[in-house]
Amino acid sequence: MSQKITIGKLALLIASLSDEELQAFRSTLDDVAFCQGKVGSMNLQKVISAVETAAKRNRIIHDSLYRETHALYHAILEGIDGVTRGHPSIGEMSRTVGLRFSIVRGRPYKDPDEGEWIAVAFYGTIGAPVKGAEHETFGLGINHI
Amino acid sequence: MSQKITIGKLALLIASLSDEELQAFRSTLDDVAFCQGKVGSMNLQKVISAVETAAKRNRIIHDSLYRETHALYHAILEGIDGVTRGHPSIGEMSRTVGLRFSIVRGRPYKDPDEGEWIAVAFYGTIGAPVKGAEHETFGLGINHI
Amino acid sequence: MSQKITIGKLALLIASLSDEELQAFRSTLDDVAFCQGKVGSMNLQKVISAVETAAKRNRIIHDSLYRETHALYHAILEGIDGVTRGHPSIGEMSRTVGLRFSIVRGRPYKDPDEGEWIAVAFYGTIGAPVKGAEHETFGLGINHI
Amino acid sequence: MSQKITIGKLALLIASLSDEELQAFRSTLDDVAFCQGKVGSMNLQKVISAVETAAKRNRIIHDSLYRETHALYHAILEGIDGVTRGHPSIGEMSRTVGLRFSIVRGRPYKDPDEGEWIAVAFYGTIGAPVKGAEHETFGLGINHI
Amino acid sequence: MSQKITIGKLALLIASLSDEELQAFRSTLDDVAFCQGKVGSMNLQKVISAVETAAKRNRIIHDSLYRETHALYHAILEGIDGVTRGHPSIGEMSRTVGLRFSIVRGRPYKDPDEGEWIAVAFYGTIGAPVKGAEHETFGLGINHI
Amino acid sequence: MSQKITIGKLALLIASLSDEELQAFRSTLDDVAFCQGKVGSMNLQKVISAVETAAKRNRIIHDSLYRETHALYHAILEGIDGVTRGHPSIGEMSRTVGLRFSIVRGRPYKDPDEGEWIAVAFYGTIGAPVKGAEHETFGLGINHI
Repeated sequence: MSQKITIGKLALLIASLSDEELQAFRSTLDDVAFCQGKVGSMNLQKVISAVETAAKRNRIIHDSLYRETHALYHAILEGIDGVTRGHPSIGEMSRTVGLRFSIVRGRPYKDPDEGEWIAVAFYGTIGAPVKGAEHETFGLGINHI
Repeated sequence: MSQKITIGKLALLIASLSDEELQAFRSTLDDVAFCQGKVGSMNLQKVISAVETAAKRNRIIHDSLYRETHALYHAILEGIDGVTRGHPSIGEMSRTVGLRFSIVRGRPYKDPDEGEWIAVAFYGTIGAPVKGAEHETFGLGINHI
Repeated sequence: MSQKITIGKLALLIASLSDEELQAFRSTLDDVAFCQGKVGSMNLQKVISAVETAAKRNRIIHDSLYRETHALYHAILEGIDGVTRGHPSIGEMSRTVGLRFSIVRGRPYKDPDEGEWIAVAFYGTIGAPVKGAEHETFGLGINHI
Repeated sequence: MSQKITIGKLALLIASLSDEELQAFRSTLDDVAFCQGKVGSMNLQKVISAVETAAKRNRIIHDSLYRETHALYHAILEGIDGVTRGHPSIGEMSRTVGLRFSIVRGRPYKDPDEGEWIAVAFYGTIGAPVKGAEHETFGLGINHI
Repeated sequence: MSQKITIGKLALLIASLSDEELQAFRSTLDDVAFCQGKVGSMNLQKVISAVETAAKRNRIIHDSLYRETHALYHAILEGIDGVTRGHPSIGEMSRTVGLRFSIVRGRPYKDPDEGEWIAVAFYGTIGAPVKGAEHETFGLGINHI
Repeated sequence: MSQKITIGKLALLIASLSDEELQAFRSTLDDVAFCQGKVGSMNLQKVISAVETAAKRNRIIHDSLYRETHALYHAILEGIDGVTRGHPSIGEMSRTVGLRFSIVRGRPYKDPDEGEWIAVAFYGTIGAPVKGAEHETFGLGINHI
């Protein structure tokens, strides 16, 4: 891989590891901006909003630039493609999600002209709206920003 | 989470961590059957075959039972939904993948009647068929078996 | 076909034939568990719930096992792919469905190790939310259980 | 249902019943034009061509009118959506189909101004390119013509 | 192109040009029936209804014939595939649209037996439900009628 | 619209208008970089390559920056979603395309920090691989670059 920083791998580790497990990877997080959050919903719009809000509140993206919102939005949707595997809907398909998510922004490539990229990862459960009737799910989206 | 073993998380760690990084998680792998492999291709059929072959060669699934092939196949396709984000094709869409994959089989739930489940994870790169013109990608599929 | 019982064909006949027409096939139903029901809605979630409820009430699947719920859910979604042809949504796409459905559980394969499988079939109409502005639709999903 | 002739149901019966089983429905076929055929392939293009060729050879559609080819083509694709459940590809997704198909053309509605419609049904198996590693599949498409 | 009238191109021009810009193309509109409208919504159902209502009110399609409603509906959905690029939903995916649309009905082919066809075009913006956070979008659907 | 330059509309006009018709819009092209091309194929990969090659040869994107290739690639795919309406494949679905395409790069927004964006438009025909058995198709994709 011609990448010096694997923002996707960092995003998936932040989303899926416990704080303790993540310790071993702490030093690799120094070169990126990142944040994490949680969202549980049958409403896809709320999942998207939770990530967008976290990104803006933690200043991972520039609040008033559509350009950055656009880059993040498509990274979120690609992550949701992985979470929903096939059709990006949740409640309409009679299922619910409980997700931890992470957003990582950094410069993955050696060539500085490749600029900044953003990764969004989700890890948690998807299943019937009944406690315990669920399995794990994961999604990762990456975009230039 | 009502699961005692997170086979999805184990699959994603096996697919994405280096051998050294994976050491910290070794003990949690004792309760599952797993294998890993690599595949690089513009041909989706080869990616699917690589996982199926690895699963059979490592006796993760029973070679002659269609039931198990069927469970694995759908887990692979769900993982590929995450890798390809939107449309499960590679070469036809003028892109190529270089992937590590893992297959984990185990009993994630406390209730023994929930039986065995299988997780398939992919981690690697997707991009133009030009060296370096690629970014990370990840996919996870889970099914009862 | 290496199958001794075609659960998919039985499901489609139960969903689409009248009671009278179905008489000729009655004897073939002795070796499977099955039930049928009706649902009309612009809400996909209600269609899914109607099938899940019928399956549980008629003890086609084991109520408290997520494993069985999971198998049924994916069979339902595959049936809905046939009904909706392209995008699994109804009301959001300004259309409504009036469906009869059937669920068939049995052992289709000669080899007893292939175990039980489940088929879900839908037959009815899809169209504009205006009386008569509709055509027939059909869907079949099959999964191991 | 405000339809006097259910061309979709007729198509599904022709595609899935044996000649003997179909006898009971023979009289209902008098009011429609129909044909049937078989195709086994890992190549989706061959499946589409087999139906188009049968339709033209049996004069179900007018050979030189694009209008009729267009109506048939979309009915075929909708039937394939049911067969493939999610993504209309076969070999690329490492699976193969063995299908019987039927094409029915008629006037389903009481109002003569509703004109002619066409139904395409597929019934058979889909699975791994290994004998016996397959399950049933069905698809139905309907269009005005 | 074997078409004498490009109803698709006319539809896209009516949807995207200003009245002044459209002047140069006025004469080519003499041979078709057409109308235009506007719709802004996070609700896909409202977008579909706006086009259907305009088509009926302007007598582009015959109000009480399902055949014509069916032809228009599929042309609308194909136009929406272009607008939404990937998944035909708006609000559920946390985005909103502001669209001008046009409907053109005519005889595009030299051969009179090819009959009438209908084109639906959308042009406008899609984006976050925040003023200015949006980019252009376009969609075109065509069907025989 | 808060945009000063509608790069999407310019792209659709370049792709669909004749040279003569485009004259009236010439002055609006002064503020953007653009190119156009043609491609006819049953192979989606060739369509994608034709646009990528034209973009690089005409220096619309920077040849050696993956960042720009990535932005263009996703704009192309979104345009192809419009062209193929539903499933981005051509030959596999037994159809062929004959397309003119355009690529427009510019600064659509008043705020200079919104930077450059790229639009890709396709206009032409899609249909059976038989002369004349085709109708018009259009697609537009837009991305930040």
